[in-house]
Amino acid sequence: MSVSKNIKAGILLAQVRGRSPVVHHLTNWVTIYDCAQVVKSLGASPVMAHALEEVEEMSGIASSLVLNIGTLTIEFVEAMKKAARAANKKGIPVILDVCGAGATSLRDRKCLELINEVRIDIIKGNASEIGRVAGENVRTKGVDSSLVQADIKNLAAKLATRKECTVVVTGEIDIVTDGKRCFLVANGNELMSKVVGTGCMAASVIGTFAAVEQDLVKAGVSGLVCFEVAAELAAKKSPGPGSFREKLFDCLYNLDAKTVSRMQKVRC
Amino acid sequence: MSVSKNIKAGILLAQVRGRSPVVHHLTNWVTIYDCAQVVKSLGASPVMAHALEEVEEMSGIASSLVLNIGTLTIEFVEAMKKAARAANKKGIPVILDVCGAGATSLRDRKCLELINEVRIDIIKGNASEIGRVAGENVRTKGVDSSLVQADIKNLAAKLATRKECTVVVTGEIDIVTDGKRCFLVANGNELMSKVVGTGCMAASVIGTFAAVEQDLVKAGVSGLVCFEVAAELAAKKSPGPGSFREKLFDCLYNLDAKTVSRMQKVRC
Amino acid sequence: MSVSKNIKAGILLAQVRGRSPVVHHLTNWVTIYDCAQVVKSLGASPVMAHALEEVEEMSGIASSLVLNIGTLTIEFVEAMKKAARAANKKGIPVILDVCGAGATSLRDRKCLELINEVRIDIIKGNASEIGRVAGENVRTKGVDSSLVQADIKNLAAKLATRKECTVVVTGEIDIVTDGKRCFLVANGNELMSKVVGTGCMAASVIGTFAAVEQDLVKAGVSGLVCFEVAAELAAKKSPGPGSFREKLFDCLYNLDAKTVSRMQKVRC
Repeated sequence: MSVSKNIKAGILLAQVRGRSPVVHHLTNWVTIYDCAQVVKSLGASPVMAHALEEVEEMSGIASSLVLNIGTLTIEFVEAMKKAARAANKKGIPVILDVCGAGATSLRDRKCLELINEVRIDIIKGNASEIGRVAGENVRTKGVDSSLVQADIKNLAAKLATRKECTVVVTGEIDIVTDGKRCFLVANGNELMSKVVGTGCMAASVIGTFAAVEQDLVKAGVSGLVCFEVAAELAAKKSPGPGSFREKLFDCLYNLDAKTVSRMQKVRC
Repeated sequence: MSVSKNIKAGILLAQVRGRSPVVHHLTNWVTIYDCAQVVKSLGASPVMAHALEEVEEMSGIASSLVLNIGTLTIEFVEAMKKAARAANKKGIPVILDVCGAGATSLRDRKCLELINEVRIDIIKGNASEIGRVAGENVRTKGVDSSLVQADIKNLAAKLATRKECTVVVTGEIDIVTDGKRCFLVANGNELMSKVVGTGCMAASVIGTFAAVEQDLVKAGVSGLVCFEVAAELAAKKSPGPGSFREKLFDCLYNLDAKTVSRMQKVRC
Repeated sequence: MSVSKNIKAGILLAQVRGRSPVVHHLTNWVTIYDCAQVVKSLGASPVMAHALEEVEEMSGIASSLVLNIGTLTIEFVEAMKKAARAANKKGIPVILDVCGAGATSLRDRKCLELINEVRIDIIKGNASEIGRVAGENVRTKGVDSSLVQADIKNLAAKLATRKECTVVVTGEIDIVTDGKRCFLVANGNELMSKVVGTGCMAASVIGTFAAVEQDLVKAGVSGLVCFEVAAELAAKKSPGPGSFREKLFDCLYNLDAKTVSRMQKVRC
């Protein structure tokens, strides 16, 4: 797999560290620590706040907004909409992790509400989640993906075109597309699927890169590359998911542009 | 302590890994990550969802349901009941961790409501928690047990008989009983009591084994054996609770049937 | 920096381990595990409970109460007030971490409500948070402090005098004052600011020491010293924030009075 020359993930990583943007989250209660720590490990400032009375103001001091429906409630999604409207108004990117879409009708309905009622700049999920959000009749097994199909790339591009946004599909090969351009990221490691929260963290990483890069396809690709190169480095030293989680934060914290550039596997 | 020949914990572990059952949780916010990760480390699929509007549907795609009242609210317990009714209807096992029973009257009342209003297949707690649920006048100090009594075994058996369920009492020697049979598990390590969440994780592990084994006493014993053998292996390499938590996940992930069989300490 | 002779942090640590006090928390969902584990690593008993119906009773079995507004809602703050009133009535110390004060008007308002409507014995925050609570016009960037000023010491002393409480300002040099006495703690490590939750954990540690020492200035200083000495030891072995978090718990668990006494950097 050839290195795609116009993706300079290491340069964006340096910008994240230099600017230390505030990344506002309304996320799930399972991996909320991991989402915060992954942002902090990149050198940025995570903030988690979900009270209806403060989400607008918090989005006002942030440079991007990450939404994750992993442990949604109806009230929580209302707070997401309010935060997103403030983000839309301010012009900062909104990332939605459609975590568990396809598992219940509540999740499907709330994903569609979010996508239709506010502007979502990046929709992120695994193949079956994105399939469901795109209108395909797939079934999510818990929060793990069961969809295996060649046309997921097509489907993501169509969704991106229809919603005029960027779509990120995570998996062994990740897809990042805005309908016109499409990048494939082949970094990452098997151990990522054995640790709770790698999907959620990927969304937070993308949200962090989107805070410093207006081209959201580039932000998505660069974020995934950095996250997954760090995961490859961490996996080498990890006998299992416990140590992997810890070393992932260490490796992100110590990641340098040279290593990213040498290890990145990106294709158009 | 002789090895009980009819407990084949390693075989059940292989079944968990082979079938990768979905284990639905309504659990506390302190150790929710640990509960998810322990299930994932065993090779199964954790899902955490508590919205009243989706708990029935989520239980519908699960093979077992784990309830934990650690950070209960009245609304949250209503969601538990709804999830449990769906699980009962579907015929999948429901595990209740009576976390902190005896500490407040709200906890006592809600435990009894759950046990009386829905079918709980496995009730799990430490000695003082189970004592309280069984109607004994004991006092829980926070979430740690203070009850030390020889007759806890008796009390557990009576509760199991009365509620026609399996009762698991964790401690230095764990008790697993359905009123007729009674197994004692002597695996585990002192360090387990120094780490937040080992009790909650034990319930999640039992829930995972109950998803593949209809004999819930066997599921309970096998789950505890695997969890605590992994804990013994992890403790050997751990100078304290921080590294122990990490290595516990690693050891569960790498646990093989031979080691389990060699190390298990089960008595009738 | 000379060692302040009348701070015997190691002796208080031994008392924490000997008495194992219950420390009740109403805290945020991001670092709730870390707050519980830091208390447990010290040898005390954490309990996390926030239901309006049980907070009074839970405070009744506790030796101190820690409040943290990190992921506040209006309802959650009402539960905090109820818990605090019970703690006030019982005479156990109440610690408030004004996490994120200055970031939104909701946080400012709720901090003031808590400080004015119930008795807070220790107010803890970073420089910009304490500045805001003290009435200074500073702006908090997410949950990280941006205020750098020489007069923060003065400001803390004034707040302590006005509210007749102890004020703790964390930073490179921590300040602990009751308006009359003022101690500076220079322990700690750069890596602490790269890990999510060290601020929250500091409040939980102080709450744990306050459970065994009535002189809250001494409790605050001793707690910070033990926590930050452990952090220094942990940082030596940690290539990054992932391993640091794990080793911090190990080092606290294994901390001995001699090391604390040798390494503590406290000034009046």
